Amino acid sequence: MYAKRMDNIKASDIREILKLTQIPNMISFAGGLPAPELFPVEKIKLAEISALNKYGQKALQYGTTDGLVPLREKITLRVSKFGIKATPSNILITSGSQQGLDMVGKLFIDPGDVVLCESPSYLGALNAFKAYEPKFVEVDTDNDGMVMEDLEAKLCEHKNVKIIYVIPEFQNPTGRTWSIERREKLIKLANKYDVVIIEDNPYGELRFEGELNPSVKSIDTEGRVVYLGTFSKVFCPGYRMAWILASEDIISKFIFIKQGLDLQTSTIGQYDINEFMEMNDLDKHVEKLVSVYRNRRNIMLDEIDKTFPKEAIVTHPEGGLFTWVELPESINTRDLLTKAIERMVAFVPGESFFPNGGNNRCMRLNYSNMKEDKIKEGINILAKLIKEELK
Amino acid sequence: MYAKRMDNIKASDIREILKLTQIPNMISFAGGLPAPELFPVEKIKLAEISALNKYGQKALQYGTTDGLVPLREKITLRVSKFGIKATPSNILITSGSQQGLDMVGKLFIDPGDVVLCESPSYLGALNAFKAYEPKFVEVDTDNDGMVMEDLEAKLCEHKNVKIIYVIPEFQNPTGRTWSIERREKLIKLANKYDVVIIEDNPYGELRFEGELNPSVKSIDTEGRVVYLGTFSKVFCPGYRMAWILASEDIISKFIFIKQGLDLQTSTIGQYDINEFMEMNDLDKHVEKLVSVYRNRRNIMLDEIDKTFPKEAIVTHPEGGLFTWVELPESINTRDLLTKAIERMVAFVPGESFFPNGGNNRCMRLNYSNMKEDKIKEGINILAKLIKEELK
Repeated sequence: MYAKRMDNIKASDIREILKLTQIPNMISFAGGLPAPELFPVEKIKLAEISALNKYGQKALQYGTTDGLVPLREKITLRVSKFGIKATPSNILITSGSQQGLDMVGKLFIDPGDVVLCESPSYLGALNAFKAYEPKFVEVDTDNDGMVMEDLEAKLCEHKNVKIIYVIPEFQNPTGRTWSIERREKLIKLANKYDVVIIEDNPYGELRFEGELNPSVKSIDTEGRVVYLGTFSKVFCPGYRMAWILASEDIISKFIFIKQGLDLQTSTIGQYDINEFMEMNDLDKHVEKLVSVYRNRRNIMLDEIDKTFPKEAIVTHPEGGLFTWVELPESINTRDLLTKAIERMVAFVPGESFFPNGGNNRCMRLNYSNMKEDKIKEGINILAKLIKEELK
Repeated sequence: MYAKRMDNIKASDIREILKLTQIPNMISFAGGLPAPELFPVEKIKLAEISALNKYGQKALQYGTTDGLVPLREKITLRVSKFGIKATPSNILITSGSQQGLDMVGKLFIDPGDVVLCESPSYLGALNAFKAYEPKFVEVDTDNDGMVMEDLEAKLCEHKNVKIIYVIPEFQNPTGRTWSIERREKLIKLANKYDVVIIEDNPYGELRFEGELNPSVKSIDTEGRVVYLGTFSKVFCPGYRMAWILASEDIISKFIFIKQGLDLQTSTIGQYDINEFMEMNDLDKHVEKLVSVYRNRRNIMLDEIDKTFPKEAIVTHPEGGLFTWVELPESINTRDLLTKAIERMVAFVPGESFFPNGGNNRCMRLNYSNMKEDKIKEGINILAKLIKEELK
C-alpha cells in the first residue's frame, strides 16, 4: 500500500523517549529550542496590527511562490554580514529550513546517490534527505570542521556523490566552527569533483566571541553552494520562516518544486516578519539573545568542568545553541538518557547524529532553552548519573 | 546534477502566460482566488491580538507536528456536516492542501505506479503527484462524476493502481458534483481492488443550492479514504492552513513525513485561526461568501448564456468557484487565451487539466474573484473573441 521510500521514514525510538521532555518541570537540554522568554511578544503584536493596517486583504490572499520582495530584500542585507552578495532573485522563502532541506533532497538526490556529511551531522537534515533514498557517507571531523583529506578520499571513492552537506558555524550537534582554510579547501574540492555544497547556517548570527568567518557561499566561485538561513533562531520558530539562497538557475528549479509542495509560504507570516523588521532593529534583538545565550553556555561549561569526569571531552562553542560531550568509552548515553529522564533531565544521545549509527558515548546538550539555575541543576544530576555508571 | 524526477517538474508555459494576470486591471477568471474584499480583516486583527494576549510565547515557539489540539477539535466539528466522524487524532494540520497532496504522493506513489483521476482533474494535484513519477490514467466523467464502468475497467486493466484521486464537490475544473450512487460505488470498487481514495474537498462548504451530499469519507468502510480539507476557501488562503483527515494508522505515517518536510505548520498561524473561530462564527462568514459567490455564478452563467455560441456546453455548478465551458470543436482555447490576454481577460485553457493532454476546446472560468460588473465585461469580451474565431 505504501511507497518503498517509507521503509526509510520511520518512528525513531529516541523521538519517542524525547516526547517525555514535554512533561512539566523536565530540565530539557534535548531540543534546539530558543528561549521563549526572549520572544518579543508585544512588539510582534504591534507588527501584526501594522501589517494588517498597511496591507489588509493583500496579506491574507495567495502570494507568489518565491516570496515577498521587501522581505527578500531585507534578507540580502542580513546575509551580507557573512560576505554574501545576493539579490532577491537569489532567494526563495521557505516554511522553515526543514523545508529547504526537503527541497534539496527533491532537487538533487536520486535513490542510491551518495550524500557526504559531517560525522556527526544534523538529524533533521538526514531525515529530510532519507525520503529520497540516498546512501550517507560520513566524513571525519575535528575541531576545525571536516577533515579535508578524508573528504577528498571519499570524493574519489564514491562516483555518485551528489551533495556535501555542512554546517560550518556552531555545528549541530558538536558546536564546532570550521576554520577559513577548511572552507576554502571545501570549495576547491567541490569544484574539482563537480559536487553541490549545501551550507546550513541557522545559528551563525548567534556568535558569542571571536571573529565572524566568511560563509562558504561567500567564497563560492561557480554557483554551486546552496545556502540555508532562517528566522527561527534569531526571531521566533513559530512562524516557520526561512530561506534558500542560491544561483538564479537553482532557485528557479526550487520554485517549481515549491509550487508542487505547498504553493508558497504563509503570506501573512511574511508580512508580519517584514513589518517587525521595518519597525524594530532585529540586530538589537539578536544582541540580547547573544548575551543571554553566552551566559548560559558559560554556566553549562563551568558546571560540566566542575562536575563531569575529567576524561570527558567538551566543545567550547563560540556561538549557537549546543555543546557536545564525549564521555568515557564505557558509558552508553542511550541507557544514560533513560535514567536521566527518570530524574527529570533530558538530552539527545550522540548516536542519533551518526547516520550509520555507533558512537554511543556522546551526548548533545542544548543551553539556550533552560534558565541558569536549571542548567546548573540538570548538569549536576547528569554528572551524578555518569559517575554512578563509571563505578 | 539534478535528480531524475526533475524531468517531470518543469515550468509550464500556461503558468508563464498566467503571470500576466497580475497586471493591474486584468479581468482574471484564471486563478482559484477567493474574493479578497470579503476577508474579515478587522476581525482577524482582533483574533491575532487575542491569541498573543492569551498564549504569548507559546504561540511563537515550536509546536507539535500534528498540530494544535483545539484547532483539530474544531475541524472535527466542521467536517461533521459532511457526515464524517473523527477525533483530533485523525487529523494532521498541513501548510495548505497542496502540502497534503505532496504528502499523499510521498506516502503512496512509487515511480511507475498508476494514479487514477477524473478526466479532467485538478492541475495542482497532478503537479504534486508528478514529483513521485506516477503514470496518470484518466477516468471518464459525466455530470454525475466519475463513470464507474470506466473506473472498474481501468482498475482491471492496470495492476499497480495506488490511488484514486477525486474531487466530488464542485469539482475543479468542471464545477460538477458527484451523485450519491457514484460515491457509494466508488467505495465498493476501492474495497474490491484494494486501492486508496484521496478525496479533496476544498469547496464543499460553498454550496449555493441543493442538498448537501455525504462525503466519500463518511461512507468509508475500511479506512481507505484520505480526506483533504482547507481554510483557504472559507477563510483566507494567506495563512496556508489546511488538514488531512484519515485513519490513525495513515495519519501516523503522515506525521513522520511531515517531520522531514517542515516539522510543523506555523504555530502562530494555527493559534490565530483557532482564536478567530473562538471569537466568531465561521459558518456565518461562509454564509456571506455563499451569497456573494452565488450571485457571481448567476451573473457569469447568465452572461455566457446570452453571449456565447449556442453549441457551448456549460456546467451549472451548485457551489464552489468554477464553471467549465466546452466550446465548438474548431476553437483552440490556448490560442484564445493569448488573444484574450491582449484584451485584458484571462482564464485557464482546459488542456492543462488533462494529465495526458488534448481537449483543446475547453476552458475553466472562475467567478469568485471578480466583481459583478467585471464578470459581465469579461464574458462579453470572451464571447466576441470566440465568435471571431468561429467566423
